[in-house]
Amino acid sequence: MARVLLTGVTGLIGRATAPALTEAGHEVVTLGRNPACDIPCDILDPNATATALETARASHLLHLAWHDGPRDRWTSKANLDWMAATLHLVQEFARSGGQRAVCAGSCAEYDWSVPELTETSPLRPRTLYGAAKAGTGLALCAGQDALGISLAWARIFFVYGPGEPPGRLFGDLISNLKAGQPVDCTDGVQERDFLHVGDLARALSQLLDSDVTGAANVASGTAIPVRTLVDEVAKQMHHPDLIRLGAIARAANDPDRLAADVTRLREEAGFTPHHDIASGVADILRVEEGQM
Amino acid sequence: MARVLLTGVTGLIGRATAPALTEAGHEVVTLGRNPACDIPCDILDPNATATALETARASHLLHLAWHDGPRDRWTSKANLDWMAATLHLVQEFARSGGQRAVCAGSCAEYDWSVPELTETSPLRPRTLYGAAKAGTGLALCAGQDALGISLAWARIFFVYGPGEPPGRLFGDLISNLKAGQPVDCTDGVQERDFLHVGDLARALSQLLDSDVTGAANVASGTAIPVRTLVDEVAKQMHHPDLIRLGAIARAANDPDRLAADVTRLREEAGFTPHHDIASGVADILRVEEGQM
Repeated sequence: MARVLLTGVTGLIGRATAPALTEAGHEVVTLGRNPACDIPCDILDPNATATALETARASHLLHLAWHDGPRDRWTSKANLDWMAATLHLVQEFARSGGQRAVCAGSCAEYDWSVPELTETSPLRPRTLYGAAKAGTGLALCAGQDALGISLAWARIFFVYGPGEPPGRLFGDLISNLKAGQPVDCTDGVQERDFLHVGDLARALSQLLDSDVTGAANVASGTAIPVRTLVDEVAKQMHHPDLIRLGAIARAANDPDRLAADVTRLREEAGFTPHHDIASGVADILRVEEGQM
Repeated sequence: MARVLLTGVTGLIGRATAPALTEAGHEVVTLGRNPACDIPCDILDPNATATALETARASHLLHLAWHDGPRDRWTSKANLDWMAATLHLVQEFARSGGQRAVCAGSCAEYDWSVPELTETSPLRPRTLYGAAKAGTGLALCAGQDALGISLAWARIFFVYGPGEPPGRLFGDLISNLKAGQPVDCTDGVQERDFLHVGDLARALSQLLDSDVTGAANVASGTAIPVRTLVDEVAKQMHHPDLIRLGAIARAANDPDRLAADVTRLREEAGFTPHHDIASGVADILRVEEGQM
């Protein structure tokens, strides 16, 4: 059992990760602005973070918190603040005696003109979000020896789960279909790797328990056309008639395929997903119905 | 004339850059820990930096300061501190009304298995220093619009100049030959791009005056075998007999060639070097003799 400091616990991924860590036998200490956190702390405040890490005395860190403006996520200068805050948080974690860290990176760090993405694929982020994540990951992966810790940088691909905020494909799809409203989609032939948030949470927990250092893709390992996911949701919600594939044009630079090589995650962290798309969608619709 | 805030003024490059900026007609305000700076400030202290930038009210920023431990430059965790400090400095510069910034990056950001390096070559730093520079550059180049400034990231290649600290090829070479001591070298066939520090200073000044945004290689544009530089110094110091080429083995991963594509610097910033190796070495030996 490890004492795991968890950040970002109020987000889509964080909400699923706390129970996954507990299930794996760990003690979880949550850190964040939310007053319900075990250690309330604004991670953007360096002094507060230093004090909080001294208090936490955690052996492990799972750092998911980041700027999460639904509208300006990709472009906000807050990405630079979160970058500096993450560098500082990990340093304070090491200083307080921490040993093992996993931090959330993103597939947005990669060059999206490359369809099959391995951890050594070139980093050519298109957005400030992707650049800030890539920059933080480069530095922390290279700096772990100097800090005296072991660190993995989880490049998370596409995730779907319950309670997504507006502006995300899956959440918008469910809320529109619930309301009986038509859903305008692209042609949906672009291929992406989607992972159920419960599987993602287990993957992060297993990564934390592993010896993997450096960048590791976190995904299902199977890229599917976006329309396959859309069709599955519509079918299970009994409204395939409301889906208008091709109603909106894809952006000119929208990649045809973004597939993750998950060899490291599978072989070095021992992760395999529990869900396929049909069971994953069914699971989330069950949860969403329970919440209504 | 711009009001240029200059950091790193006590280093090899900074010492040459202040006069180059003045010669280009700019007002120079120096910022740093050295009490001789116009605005004394520890850039690693966020509060002090915020105050200093308010005081400086500079329209332009040329940021050269970084961790400079002669022994642990490549591996020190101080690289992470300088990364966070640089992100913070540039943000405070923008907040105080700054418009145009050039920051010092490094050829150590690149994948050194690639012999011809353009700004779009893959970033695969081998060291913490290179990773921290690459990460900072990625984020600031992507963040300049969000910050409302124009920013160029100068990927500086190999520089030679007067008064180099021990542990650097050129400085060690001169001090050994002055002392009449033999100099053990590798075979010296590896090719590098060397730029005279006076030329480098002019290049940075011209870059600051240009509209170049994003990454820009800063180098002479001509890669030469290291032994060409060594031989030139030995010849001009009348001690070719003291050079022992091949006395030490090159590291297994020492790249055969690192050449810089300087198209951006030449065409967009209008820079051409004044010195070739013979005149550059002669110039520096003159300076070094004047200092003895």
